[in-house]
Amino acid sequence: MSTSGRILVINPNSSVSCTAGIAAALERFGALGRFEVVRLAEGPPAIASWRDWHSVTEPLCRLVEREEAAAYVIACVSDPGLEAVRATTRRPVLGMFRSAVAAAMTRAERFGVIGFVAASEARQRLALRGMGVEDRLAGWVPLDLPMEVLTDPEAPRTRIREAARALAATGAGAIVLGCTGLAGHLAAAEDAAGLPVIEPCAAAGAMALLATAPQ
Amino acid sequence: MSTSGRILVINPNSSVSCTAGIAAALERFGALGRFEVVRLAEGPPAIASWRDWHSVTEPLCRLVEREEAAAYVIACVSDPGLEAVRATTRRPVLGMFRSAVAAAMTRAERFGVIGFVAASEARQRLALRGMGVEDRLAGWVPLDLPMEVLTDPEAPRTRIREAARALAATGAGAIVLGCTGLAGHLAAAEDAAGLPVIEPCAAAGAMALLATAPQ
Amino acid sequence: MSTSGRILVINPNSSVSCTAGIAAALERFGALGRFEVVRLAEGPPAIASWRDWHSVTEPLCRLVEREEAAAYVIACVSDPGLEAVRATTRRPVLGMFRSAVAAAMTRAERFGVIGFVAASEARQRLALRGMGVEDRLAGWVPLDLPMEVLTDPEAPRTRIREAARALAATGAGAIVLGCTGLAGHLAAAEDAAGLPVIEPCAAAGAMALLATAPQ
Amino acid sequence: MSTSGRILVINPNSSVSCTAGIAAALERFGALGRFEVVRLAEGPPAIASWRDWHSVTEPLCRLVEREEAAAYVIACVSDPGLEAVRATTRRPVLGMFRSAVAAAMTRAERFGVIGFVAASEARQRLALRGMGVEDRLAGWVPLDLPMEVLTDPEAPRTRIREAARALAATGAGAIVLGCTGLAGHLAAAEDAAGLPVIEPCAAAGAMALLATAPQ
Amino acid sequence: MSTSGRILVINPNSSVSCTAGIAAALERFGALGRFEVVRLAEGPPAIASWRDWHSVTEPLCRLVEREEAAAYVIACVSDPGLEAVRATTRRPVLGMFRSAVAAAMTRAERFGVIGFVAASEARQRLALRGMGVEDRLAGWVPLDLPMEVLTDPEAPRTRIREAARALAATGAGAIVLGCTGLAGHLAAAEDAAGLPVIEPCAAAGAMALLATAPQ
Amino acid sequence: MSTSGRILVINPNSSVSCTAGIAAALERFGALGRFEVVRLAEGPPAIASWRDWHSVTEPLCRLVEREEAAAYVIACVSDPGLEAVRATTRRPVLGMFRSAVAAAMTRAERFGVIGFVAASEARQRLALRGMGVEDRLAGWVPLDLPMEVLTDPEAPRTRIREAARALAATGAGAIVLGCTGLAGHLAAAEDAAGLPVIEPCAAAGAMALLATAPQ
Repeated sequence: MSTSGRILVINPNSSVSCTAGIAAALERFGALGRFEVVRLAEGPPAIASWRDWHSVTEPLCRLVEREEAAAYVIACVSDPGLEAVRATTRRPVLGMFRSAVAAAMTRAERFGVIGFVAASEARQRLALRGMGVEDRLAGWVPLDLPMEVLTDPEAPRTRIREAARALAATGAGAIVLGCTGLAGHLAAAEDAAGLPVIEPCAAAGAMALLATAPQ
Repeated sequence: MSTSGRILVINPNSSVSCTAGIAAALERFGALGRFEVVRLAEGPPAIASWRDWHSVTEPLCRLVEREEAAAYVIACVSDPGLEAVRATTRRPVLGMFRSAVAAAMTRAERFGVIGFVAASEARQRLALRGMGVEDRLAGWVPLDLPMEVLTDPEAPRTRIREAARALAATGAGAIVLGCTGLAGHLAAAEDAAGLPVIEPCAAAGAMALLATAPQ
Repeated sequence: MSTSGRILVINPNSSVSCTAGIAAALERFGALGRFEVVRLAEGPPAIASWRDWHSVTEPLCRLVEREEAAAYVIACVSDPGLEAVRATTRRPVLGMFRSAVAAAMTRAERFGVIGFVAASEARQRLALRGMGVEDRLAGWVPLDLPMEVLTDPEAPRTRIREAARALAATGAGAIVLGCTGLAGHLAAAEDAAGLPVIEPCAAAGAMALLATAPQ
Repeated sequence: MSTSGRILVINPNSSVSCTAGIAAALERFGALGRFEVVRLAEGPPAIASWRDWHSVTEPLCRLVEREEAAAYVIACVSDPGLEAVRATTRRPVLGMFRSAVAAAMTRAERFGVIGFVAASEARQRLALRGMGVEDRLAGWVPLDLPMEVLTDPEAPRTRIREAARALAATGAGAIVLGCTGLAGHLAAAEDAAGLPVIEPCAAAGAMALLATAPQ
Repeated sequence: MSTSGRILVINPNSSVSCTAGIAAALERFGALGRFEVVRLAEGPPAIASWRDWHSVTEPLCRLVEREEAAAYVIACVSDPGLEAVRATTRRPVLGMFRSAVAAAMTRAERFGVIGFVAASEARQRLALRGMGVEDRLAGWVPLDLPMEVLTDPEAPRTRIREAARALAATGAGAIVLGCTGLAGHLAAAEDAAGLPVIEPCAAAGAMALLATAPQ
Repeated sequence: MSTSGRILVINPNSSVSCTAGIAAALERFGALGRFEVVRLAEGPPAIASWRDWHSVTEPLCRLVEREEAAAYVIACVSDPGLEAVRATTRRPVLGMFRSAVAAAMTRAERFGVIGFVAASEARQRLALRGMGVEDRLAGWVPLDLPMEVLTDPEAPRTRIREAARALAATGAGAIVLGCTGLAGHLAAAEDAAGLPVIEPCAAAGAMALLATAPQ
């Protein structure tokens, strides 16, 4: 059901810096030239509302229909359009939030999420319900910072450390970074929380390698 | 919290052929020489009872205490001694069943398990409860074949195909191979079920690579 | 928070006959000229896929932004775009599926759903999860008939009676008609099942009258 | 299964002012002369204990057996005797608490309840379990005021506003007034909470109209 | 909070033979003269409907108010009036169904119930919800025999063995006898099912001895 | 399936004073010479870690295999090796924690646990999951005192009273003493909490008497 070959990682927002951050995270993960990261030129600057979230489904489906790949990763940590994209291809389609949550569940019984903006919580809870693990969410703490601040190597660190410590205090045993823009801050979050922290680009990368492994 | 370096994969049973099968599964997954697969010489031939399951905890802990590694994988699909081993090291410790179930949950909302023997079901349900996803188990079908038959390249194929088809009929959207001895039969199971099938050695390998990725 | 005035009922598909059926169902319910039923000209002929479901969100939001009303009803029994539309207005926004399920829960502890096509089940389960009552679903039986057959006064009756009897046999205590196109067949379903049957247009109408009642 | 005709609303307590408040709430809802509100002369002054709650079942059943109606509403927000009354008639029988909770679930994923006295909580939780939605209860705040204070147009307002604000702070998305005596204070509660507030007399009225609509 | 002394076991139905059977079951359990078994003269012949179930609350409360005891057992396997009776006394009050279910849960993860008549199921499910264990019920099989047949030493045996075997086939690990009238048939049920069977009179007796043990 | 005769109560730790405390608790319960309390000489001084918990399974199984009894009680409030021991004998095998939790559930809908050391919580939660009642745990408060302090008649009283009061404040309706070493402090805990307190030695004793009652 799967073949070797490229794994197409599609950032459904149009941000160039966010797309570069996703590519950097996958490179750090050491993924062997298998991944190709693209952005949805017609996407919104960030997926911050339900309208944004619905709006990217159709262009995601069209991109997948015209681009052959061994597997696809929807590179936004709210898994927009996942069921719709899956219906367009026989190849594996992975969502970054589901991948990161799954990875967290291999490390601890309960996990916390550092979110992008408060409005993202409802969409991530929707995905947790799809997986059946909403009650394993120990806490959800938004950063509420603009995307350009998030991807700065220093600016958001204080806020990230606070969020990580707040989640550690809830009894979470692992933390999920709830936005691709946070990939550069994994070590800061781990240091602050003293807990394993899951970076969703790498998590989805690992799942895509698994889903396309030769048999 | 993690470093590069070897990942020690410990088969808690003493079977040489089973250990070789685990190593072959990880090699097929293409894991870069990072994995070293060992067996527990004092373990039982297979983990087929609760006494077997409890008995390997102490030798697993001792092995981890004396062997440095970047991460450890407990290479039995009932995750024996997971909490005890975690208490002996600051490094990531991964269980194969939890890893495979997590991977299945990135592909579908409900999954089935092809089990080794009927008695394994209770231990795998225990792990599902630890993860909070017992109600996502669509079905659990045991093969009830001896370990030496399981690892034969042809002998168990008919039974595996039947089990895969039975699970597909439950509405499962993915299947977990519930025993390391089944690694060589992934393609047969996928063909029969028409569903993604998760091989636990590769799944735990992917999770261990993720847990030890450079930041 | 609410005022008297018209209640705008928006059929997100473009079918004229389906829209007429919704209006007829509300008229039968006796709703006093409060309801105005419109269709989304740019909508698909029916909402039969995830792409259809996502695609109507943006036009629904735009219509609600430009049309003042005391309350809005999204007149499709998969509640497309509900959260997004709610974010565009301070007025009550009701989904037909959530309204019908809520009404069923006042009549019985478990309920069944007669669905439009098999692919609708996943979307209705998503809504049940949002309400927290997925485990009260006793059964879900699709009709798998074209929309033009559904709205025929006679053609789908045999199939509807079969579905109603099948759901009664599951132990359901009430039945939800899972498509607006079924409004004309309520009596047939009640007769066959011997159970209360909830028609979603009328259910959402009742909820909208309640939400806009003078205080 | 249903016919047009009067809907008999039975207040199981003997309070005349409480009965008048129920009638006023239904009139405000604009229900067309369909509703006839009666009280149980042999009922307790209020349903404040488990003994009260059990004691009204038998007289409720007898009243329903001797009074023909198109539907019956048990007009107490703890739904006393609901199953017993249902067994005495083929007509729809609606409970005010279940009706109000159902209405709240069409407006939000979680809801709070403003209760009459602390002792009512256990009975309302029992009804929530019957519906399967106890975990959607965001908070339950009792007023602990005498019935004659509750029905005063001004006296309980401060306490009601405090309760409404406290529930809004729990993250509830809607509020249920947990006693028929509160019907006159809906606007005060909505203003204080900034959330939709469900009045149970009107909610049960809407459900009864739906259950008796011509087909 | 408890003292030594008599334990009053109150059969809320008026059946003399049923009361004698309860006393015999407690005697077999070997309970030391601590138990005194009485019947509610004003109770119905059996508790077969919701009206029966509600109707015994008031006389149960009055009996407990006038009779001092170290503990009280409500000797009907639907636990009628439990909360109301508890509010009348500071002494422990035990229900036979909750006691038997609790005992079953010490023996197995899932259990079945052999019920008196089909109508009892809803009341026993209500009690299971109060305990939070409805999903541990593997099956519920009614005998649907008159009380006088149940208490016959031979007549109901065939039907009881069938029910026990049917429950064993559901995967239940223990069986609860769901009526006091079945006390004489415990051995027959155990033989047929090959599982531990819990007799509710003895179970409540054990719980009452525990609740009144000297400290 | 059961016979009269001795009930073997096995303390899986090697502490002589702890064993004596278990015997004293059973004697207070008044259990008629049926109980024989032994300790596992090869056990750890207390079961304080997962390694301790796993390590006693094998010697428990061997002891049960060589000692005939009518029933067995595993006398540690984390139920070590329960499934393994059950597989070695056809006689009833009871765990003290499951017995105490079951007894608590006959007295209240939610309960708290006073634990031995913080590390015990995970093992007791595992048992609660096996029973399906983890969500009925209102609170878990560890004493974190050495075993020799626990069994002192006075030294731990202040800490026990604090824990009991803290649990009462959570809304728990009953309290479980989560360690056999606390048997002598039941009255102190009841006085402080004003709630029924379950002592696990006596609870398991009651369950064992029930499981071995003549039929």
